[in-house]
Amino acid sequence: METGMSAEGSLAYFEKVRVTEIERLTELLRMPTISAQPAHVEDMRGCAGWLANVLASAGLESKVLSTAGHPAVFADSGPIDNAPDAPTFLVYGHYDVQPAGDLSLWDSPPFEPTVRDGVIYARGSADDKGQFMIHVAAARAWHEAGRPWPMRLKFLIEGEEEIGSPNLPALVESNREALGCQYVILSDTARHDDLTPAVTVSSRGLVYKHITVHGPRRDLHSGQYGGAVANPANVLAGLIASLHDDQHRVTIPGFYDGVQLPSRADRQMLQETGLAEEMVRSVTGVERPTGEDGYSTAERVSIRPTLDVNGMVSGYTGEGASTIIPAWAKAKVSMRLVAGQDPEAISDAFDRTLRSRCPDSARIEIESDAACAAYETPRDLAVIEDALSALEEVYGRKAVLEREGGTLPILPMFKKLLGAESLMVGFASPDCNLHSPNEFFAVKDFEMGVRSILHFLNKVANRVP
Amino acid sequence: METGMSAEGSLAYFEKVRVTEIERLTELLRMPTISAQPAHVEDMRGCAGWLANVLASAGLESKVLSTAGHPAVFADSGPIDNAPDAPTFLVYGHYDVQPAGDLSLWDSPPFEPTVRDGVIYARGSADDKGQFMIHVAAARAWHEAGRPWPMRLKFLIEGEEEIGSPNLPALVESNREALGCQYVILSDTARHDDLTPAVTVSSRGLVYKHITVHGPRRDLHSGQYGGAVANPANVLAGLIASLHDDQHRVTIPGFYDGVQLPSRADRQMLQETGLAEEMVRSVTGVERPTGEDGYSTAERVSIRPTLDVNGMVSGYTGEGASTIIPAWAKAKVSMRLVAGQDPEAISDAFDRTLRSRCPDSARIEIESDAACAAYETPRDLAVIEDALSALEEVYGRKAVLEREGGTLPILPMFKKLLGAESLMVGFASPDCNLHSPNEFFAVKDFEMGVRSILHFLNKVANRVP
Repeated sequence: METGMSAEGSLAYFEKVRVTEIERLTELLRMPTISAQPAHVEDMRGCAGWLANVLASAGLESKVLSTAGHPAVFADSGPIDNAPDAPTFLVYGHYDVQPAGDLSLWDSPPFEPTVRDGVIYARGSADDKGQFMIHVAAARAWHEAGRPWPMRLKFLIEGEEEIGSPNLPALVESNREALGCQYVILSDTARHDDLTPAVTVSSRGLVYKHITVHGPRRDLHSGQYGGAVANPANVLAGLIASLHDDQHRVTIPGFYDGVQLPSRADRQMLQETGLAEEMVRSVTGVERPTGEDGYSTAERVSIRPTLDVNGMVSGYTGEGASTIIPAWAKAKVSMRLVAGQDPEAISDAFDRTLRSRCPDSARIEIESDAACAAYETPRDLAVIEDALSALEEVYGRKAVLEREGGTLPILPMFKKLLGAESLMVGFASPDCNLHSPNEFFAVKDFEMGVRSILHFLNKVANRVP
Repeated sequence: METGMSAEGSLAYFEKVRVTEIERLTELLRMPTISAQPAHVEDMRGCAGWLANVLASAGLESKVLSTAGHPAVFADSGPIDNAPDAPTFLVYGHYDVQPAGDLSLWDSPPFEPTVRDGVIYARGSADDKGQFMIHVAAARAWHEAGRPWPMRLKFLIEGEEEIGSPNLPALVESNREALGCQYVILSDTARHDDLTPAVTVSSRGLVYKHITVHGPRRDLHSGQYGGAVANPANVLAGLIASLHDDQHRVTIPGFYDGVQLPSRADRQMLQETGLAEEMVRSVTGVERPTGEDGYSTAERVSIRPTLDVNGMVSGYTGEGASTIIPAWAKAKVSMRLVAGQDPEAISDAFDRTLRSRCPDSARIEIESDAACAAYETPRDLAVIEDALSALEEVYGRKAVLEREGGTLPILPMFKKLLGAESLMVGFASPDCNLHSPNEFFAVKDFEMGVRSILHFLNKVANRVP
């Protein structure tokens, strides 16, 4: 297609409408779209309709897609007639937000967006309304500047991310053709630090288990029966302890199958920009961070799989002493996976291993809660370079590649159902009070975001043959 | 003193007043003497005064002893002038009872004693009002039959047993002379089974610990920090698992110091009358009872020390999944001790061992709740023979020696402060709903008890030089 175009027209347009765009975002932030609370069903529906209108006004064909839960919004620039080889991008975002929590901890009401010192305080400002609206504003600017779409641009804004996207896979599955794309782009992460922008290129997978060890049919008197029956709490402790060896490696057979050793470039990148031990110390208060032998803190939280107890309960947990042998003991155990690991295989191996290690004097029950693969953006994609250089142009600072230690189940899902690779470009501050009181997103974060996306679109456009 | 007396006079007297004695017990059972509930302070005081009167009317000098908590009742036959070498016996009992619990589970109100099929249903009927009143009725019968006391007989009926006797050691300490005795006799245990009477000759000691493993200063996101800091729940599991070896032996250095191997006679006795594996199976529902290698079920719960987790809690324990690294993990751990083990030494060794095993990536805090020694009645005491043969005469069946797996802190306390040996003669049914709804004590249990004690007193009297 026509290349050599600059981003200037759309950038200039955006500079003129900045205030309007912030007002539009403010309108969105006023809607209490808490997906977890049934009282907000109408707010969700209203918001989806509002978004469809906003996307339509930015020049896209848009519609609300109903699901078994809250609706999603879909928009599409339509096929790019004069550039059949242009790629298709799908912007993913979510218009639902976390509950506000304790209102008394908010300096201003969570659904009355308030700007103080150039920062917008509101629930959902960073997660994810402020961030996906960057893409909407960029699309509008591109469109209003009168430029033809350089690629086919689609939007999928869902309403159930904060409750685990229960209906998203089915929605994607049944709209495969409409949603078809080469790349998913999303802004639901953070910058590297206050000054440095980042492109996030991996997320860890997750296998989650609920374990119950059953002992006697009711709590027993430890004087009467202590010593004569297996104590399920002791058995559970033994099982959990058996899951790691002295080097803090997970002992489930096959657990590390498929895990790649870090490349020199990866180690270098993580050493430069990954989570520093000193940061762990200051944030967590843990004096001696520790983990798998042979790996740095940054590597342990990104390219290495882990296993953690998330909760554990058995017997008497109140004040004072009670001398019982508990009837049961429970634990929640999760594993974070990295690229190459097969969540189903690991889930099975976990169950098999614990069952085989559980003494026959007790009975173990294992329930699987989630099994999600890691995701890794192929590092040789040109769009990564485009994103990095667009960010550098706007922020005046080299953007870094980052790895996310947490889990984004939508990424392997998009890969599996659409064959699409995902690119995470986050504009929020790393300490934006995500899921907490006084969540914020700076007006400047929004503006730099729109400029970055416009530069990015331009770079992609310039690559299109 | 004058020997050769028979028990007949007092036995005959008791047979005449049986109904009156049951009425007296019923009056006592109507008093809601729940030591744990502040609302019953006046009931406790009233009951103590009532008991002092009852004991006085049985021919004993009696008085209420105040404590920092609920009062105790003391009574004394006075010195035996004509038999200066006669032993002194202290009957121990407690007039306080457990809370009634869920009233809807009682077939008749807990403090409205009701006789059905010869069985008295009431809170405290077996534990311990019905049982200590056996001794009061026996004393009255002995006295009313006009017989001189064959030994000095004292009573100490406390009001705080169900809350752990917090003020009893101080009370005994400050009344050492008045309470002085060679033997403590108490009926606060059960018969061996429905037909077979028992004398209980040991109880296990107890060391109780509250353990907290501290990790990060607040719960962390396991995606963000998983792998980089020690997880206190995993650390706690490892510490607990380390406390036993493959043979189910406790690995605390010095834990078994002083523990005697069972004598052939002990093993024989436990094989014949101890807790059977089949009984454990049917009561607990545990298909494969297990415990320390080389010992039988009966031995494991009586003459071998044990270590059990009584409670454990960490992190998220609600419905569903939460992916946190908990800030802390707690466990309650208790050890049952046997004769020869020093509770203080074991308490110290436990703390030292766990502290040394806790990795320096976490911080352990250990709080001691109780440290109480085991108690063992010397097997060569003539009074054991007297008790066994008195029971055999009344029940028409050989009485058995039993070991109690639970802990009675008062026994080592009486040994330490008074130098007295204790003898436990229980008359309640083994399934008398102790601490549960519909606690019961049969009228016949009471009557057989009084007859047994009268025979016992007579046998002791016949031994007095």
